[in-house]
Amino acid sequence: MKKSYRPNLYVALIHYPVVNKKGAIIASAFTNLDMHDISRIAKTYGVPAVYMVTPLADQKALMQKIIAHWKTGAGAAYNPDRREALEVIRIKDSLDQVIEDVHRLEGDRPKTIATCAKKYPQNIGSKRLQKMMQTSRPYLLIFGTAWGLAEEIIMSSDYVLEPIRGCGDYNHLSVRSATAIVLDRLYRT
Amino acid sequence: MKKSYRPNLYVALIHYPVVNKKGAIIASAFTNLDMHDISRIAKTYGVPAVYMVTPLADQKALMQKIIAHWKTGAGAAYNPDRREALEVIRIKDSLDQVIEDVHRLEGDRPKTIATCAKKYPQNIGSKRLQKMMQTSRPYLLIFGTAWGLAEEIIMSSDYVLEPIRGCGDYNHLSVRSATAIVLDRLYRT
Repeated sequence: MKKSYRPNLYVALIHYPVVNKKGAIIASAFTNLDMHDISRIAKTYGVPAVYMVTPLADQKALMQKIIAHWKTGAGAAYNPDRREALEVIRIKDSLDQVIEDVHRLEGDRPKTIATCAKKYPQNIGSKRLQKMMQTSRPYLLIFGTAWGLAEEIIMSSDYVLEPIRGCGDYNHLSVRSATAIVLDRLYRT
Repeated sequence: MKKSYRPNLYVALIHYPVVNKKGAIIASAFTNLDMHDISRIAKTYGVPAVYMVTPLADQKALMQKIIAHWKTGAGAAYNPDRREALEVIRIKDSLDQVIEDVHRLEGDRPKTIATCAKKYPQNIGSKRLQKMMQTSRPYLLIFGTAWGLAEEIIMSSDYVLEPIRGCGDYNHLSVRSATAIVLDRLYRT
């Protein structure tokens, strides 16, 4: 087990409020592979829960149906690795509900860290965040779907993680890839 | 631009020969999101080409149709970031064809690096690979779909990258997540 292992970093994947390509606030439809990929990433790095956040009842029902297929339906026997991963998924109506749930589980309100492909003056790097996280306090990493988190979530978060940059100007990673890279950077020793 | 930027690292995503959950050699069906996610990762880190490898004519035709939609069809205007990313995709019948193509582009045969979730005696770490890559020689990173690369590809590669480990025993990342993490590790300064 690595030194930087910490069992109280949580992940939220926001489907509302996020922005569309024109910057308008929308509720996005969830992507099936987000649940699979991000829960498997979470399992790999010891993240205890991944929150899928949407207020839409039909979206929540559909997510629950997919999760049930892999946890207790035909998929559970076919692919136990998926079942194990999807056990970390929790579905909530809003970011506030997520924060409350982590508070309840950890006995302390989590510090929230928004992620965004754009730069913000309050950006902090993953190395600084990794250092800050060497306390017993819970943290909640917040990722946006569609064209990213609504400004209100970024502005109300305790921190904003600096964008992932590679070698050039292209920074349009999928949220699945961004989650993989951010968690790997935070847990790297 | 980072010091470790190198324009001659290529990526191949193998759909044949790979293994199924029982270890039998199969040709897997391609996953649409693999093309989008992995091409976006490649664009982010300056990888000049991502090779989708399958000998199946219908699979190649379907991939070409999807790419055409985003490069020149209705998708090109709707989402130019996808067009830009998908421009790195090349479709080939076999790994040998990929190696030939890189050889042709770079004037030198690439050193091949297989990836696998299992450990091998000949594993090398990403830090050692990063150091080795500080030459002008081209490199080709090989990822497998389904349950992973066939043994013959692993055994015939110049190197085998050590598996990605997080904090525990779970190591069932999607190939999309693995590609994101491996490239980020190789390009990290």
